[in-house]
Amino acid sequence: MRRCTAWHVLHLYCLAASWAVQNGFMSVENLPLYVQIANQLLEAVRTGALPAGAKLPSVRAMARQQGVAQSTVVQAYHWLEDGQVIAARPRSGFFVASRNPSGRGVPEPTVSRPAQRPRAVAIDWWGQRILGQDPPADMLSFSSGTPGLDLLNTDRVRRAVVQAAQRQRHLLCTYPVGQGSEELRCALARYALALGCSLAPNNIVVTGGCMDAIVLCLRAVTQPGDIVALESPTHFSFLEVLQSLQLRALEIPTHPRHGISLDALQLALDTQPVKALLVTPTLSNPLGCSMPQAERRRLAKMASEHGLAVVEDAIYNELCEFDDLRRTVKSYDATGHVLLCHSFAKTLAPGLRLGWVEAGRWTPALCRIHSMESGAKTAVLELALAQLVSQAGHALAMRQLRGAITARLAEARETIASHFPKGTRVSHPAGGLLLWLELPRQVDAKRFHEACLAENMLVPPGRLFSTGGRFGQCLRIGLGGEWSAAHVQALRRMGELAALAH
Amino acid sequence: MRRCTAWHVLHLYCLAASWAVQNGFMSVENLPLYVQIANQLLEAVRTGALPAGAKLPSVRAMARQQGVAQSTVVQAYHWLEDGQVIAARPRSGFFVASRNPSGRGVPEPTVSRPAQRPRAVAIDWWGQRILGQDPPADMLSFSSGTPGLDLLNTDRVRRAVVQAAQRQRHLLCTYPVGQGSEELRCALARYALALGCSLAPNNIVVTGGCMDAIVLCLRAVTQPGDIVALESPTHFSFLEVLQSLQLRALEIPTHPRHGISLDALQLALDTQPVKALLVTPTLSNPLGCSMPQAERRRLAKMASEHGLAVVEDAIYNELCEFDDLRRTVKSYDATGHVLLCHSFAKTLAPGLRLGWVEAGRWTPALCRIHSMESGAKTAVLELALAQLVSQAGHALAMRQLRGAITARLAEARETIASHFPKGTRVSHPAGGLLLWLELPRQVDAKRFHEACLAENMLVPPGRLFSTGGRFGQCLRIGLGGEWSAAHVQALRRMGELAALAH
Repeated sequence: MRRCTAWHVLHLYCLAASWAVQNGFMSVENLPLYVQIANQLLEAVRTGALPAGAKLPSVRAMARQQGVAQSTVVQAYHWLEDGQVIAARPRSGFFVASRNPSGRGVPEPTVSRPAQRPRAVAIDWWGQRILGQDPPADMLSFSSGTPGLDLLNTDRVRRAVVQAAQRQRHLLCTYPVGQGSEELRCALARYALALGCSLAPNNIVVTGGCMDAIVLCLRAVTQPGDIVALESPTHFSFLEVLQSLQLRALEIPTHPRHGISLDALQLALDTQPVKALLVTPTLSNPLGCSMPQAERRRLAKMASEHGLAVVEDAIYNELCEFDDLRRTVKSYDATGHVLLCHSFAKTLAPGLRLGWVEAGRWTPALCRIHSMESGAKTAVLELALAQLVSQAGHALAMRQLRGAITARLAEARETIASHFPKGTRVSHPAGGLLLWLELPRQVDAKRFHEACLAENMLVPPGRLFSTGGRFGQCLRIGLGGEWSAAHVQALRRMGELAALAH
Repeated sequence: MRRCTAWHVLHLYCLAASWAVQNGFMSVENLPLYVQIANQLLEAVRTGALPAGAKLPSVRAMARQQGVAQSTVVQAYHWLEDGQVIAARPRSGFFVASRNPSGRGVPEPTVSRPAQRPRAVAIDWWGQRILGQDPPADMLSFSSGTPGLDLLNTDRVRRAVVQAAQRQRHLLCTYPVGQGSEELRCALARYALALGCSLAPNNIVVTGGCMDAIVLCLRAVTQPGDIVALESPTHFSFLEVLQSLQLRALEIPTHPRHGISLDALQLALDTQPVKALLVTPTLSNPLGCSMPQAERRRLAKMASEHGLAVVEDAIYNELCEFDDLRRTVKSYDATGHVLLCHSFAKTLAPGLRLGWVEAGRWTPALCRIHSMESGAKTAVLELALAQLVSQAGHALAMRQLRGAITARLAEARETIASHFPKGTRVSHPAGGLLLWLELPRQVDAKRFHEACLAENMLVPPGRLFSTGGRFGQCLRIGLGGEWSAAHVQALRRMGELAALAH
């Protein structure tokens, strides 16, 4: 089980250290102070003295109690947090995490088996109404996968924007030119190191969001009528873009945890003129799957061998609990076949509408379209973003955001496990705010959706995430936006409605 | 002469009033106070007591001197300004305008005679380097037609942006959805009344600038390979967009003052499958021509009769000296065949990167592409723009901007008239910051450009503004950016270089 690896590693390290100490191979004093403290806490968790959900002492209290510096306690807590023994909840402190993955009893969805031929995309307009608009005010919506105002730091963003506007006011009245302000492109190149990439600022193009970057990539590498491979199920907006650009979609079987099947993709490449692959290797939308590292390396190699353009959507990478899965396919790309698209809309400020792309060997083609059409973005906002990304507190903010998301995901999975009918399957993503749920066969999905709408609950039906009406038994449950007890209550009620909809 | 009309009307009114007073048909007291004051000043200008270029007394001094309220003097000055008897220079006061159009001795360029068949566009990359990038710092550039920081009010824009970010900070951390914030769309609908249009806020789509709006329009109304008619010469960026969208350009003969020839367009419509016309009816770039009102009405009618999509670029309308030429073709459009594109980049804040479009009968198609791809813009900036456009001071700011531009245009035309070789022709636009200059045949244009570059002066060659390398003897002189004595000096030097390049 992937989810337990980090915990196990940490635990083994501590056990080995304890054993070494107990058997006289080393003295406790030889261990770093923070490991000693972490070890004590781990022991307390192991014995049940600190049960799952228990609140840990505050950093200040713990430091006083142990007679160490507060920074040592912070280090111990972060180490335990990395090992998923404890989790931070913003403005509340640290809590013991559940050692068992939440909702363990529920099986994961089955591997998808889409048709093996490309299809023109014809969007379900009902879907666009659900996902493309704000839901009515009286509707309890599960359509968003974007952190809400309760998870994001609006003040930090506001300060950066106001500062940039005050200090660089002349930029508001000057036409920006080129690929984006140099300050932001340098900040992004530094940031990309966390995604495993060493990028030149000159090859980075600032766009009006991640989707804008993806559209630019597809326009740079395809012509109308071309075949683009996708995960199955795939992001609704990807299908929209393919329809808009008159591209054909070829859906590839996808594992609910390990992502797109590269064997199936290989078969497709061998038999059909696939121009590009549009893929979200980390926390794919809607399935929440993340490709293992070895698969990422293999995909980069395949792209190079087949001249395939891999448009990599890395928007969720920072929301992933596991460091290794934050690394991009792009980081293995030696030949420039991977086009990396990213934005901070899911982690920092959805309203800034800035994204960026490094388009590898297609950089000149992409720059041409960019400069001819969409052009440069608002320089003042670019400076604000550069400031935000470069701030020392960014890594900590991300850590806190991941902690809060993990807690929310766990709560939702627990609720589903205990209230949806037997036979329900639900995805088990390593982060993010989306769950993919498969209703048992005997549930009449249409009746279920009608019942939900009748009670003012909105949850996007699975068939929006595929061409040709597949995934009729599925739902995408978005835990984004502001979360409340009413949402948990609504999830429970949905489970009851599913049980009734036979 | 168009340019003299307003002056003449005002003068006739004053003469008639004087005559009526002198002949006892009415007493001076029957005239409004501000007309009495204006009349005195006009008389002083007519007799030469106040020669062209003379500074008028300040509003305060004049009010004291005449024993009237300052607002009455302001009214009198604005009336004279509208009649082009005097001109405001920002932060300097009011000056007597030249009654004769500046640089009167110089003839205007000839009517263009482009080829009568459509052409695929193949951009001159040298051109993109000139116009798409910031010029080197040591280069004196005449490539911009956008007002610089000396003409725009950065403080006003900064205040609006900071206020919006402070008051609506949550918008920075919320995904915007839809066609743009309602507040901005309502403000734009009110603003559009000044363009002669009565638009519904719901049909307005906010875009990432005017060019983004134009791209969306062309994508909504055409398919790759379609024919799009254009003025000749036309905006360099229009050609770029056509190339990027794989559309064919059909250039239509264009009069240097009255704009595109509708007779020629009619012929094109009768003989070729023209899908759209992309046109800038007011202060067309680069020619500076403006279609007379009757022609605008006729164009709207033609569009309706032929099912032609007219993509109207109204970005310069507010820079035009004449009220009647600020009215759009869209204002005559009863059948939704005109797609109106606009932004405030030339009048308010080039750096905001916001524009808008009302796409008539193509609104649903355009909204589809917009929501599928480019999507909503930064809501905080939208609110700032809504605020700026709605401010009571906006009309006054525009009046001042036009005054300053008129003065700069006149200075440049005078310099050209007195320093370029005989036989040089130059456009006579009713506003804006672009001049189109035609060198005499005997001047070797290539040698001239090389000589300019050798002396670090950059001026875009005419062949960038057409397919097929026409307009080799022409230059587009952009008076945008920050203007200085060095620019005037450079213009003089250019004239000398032209005289030398035989």
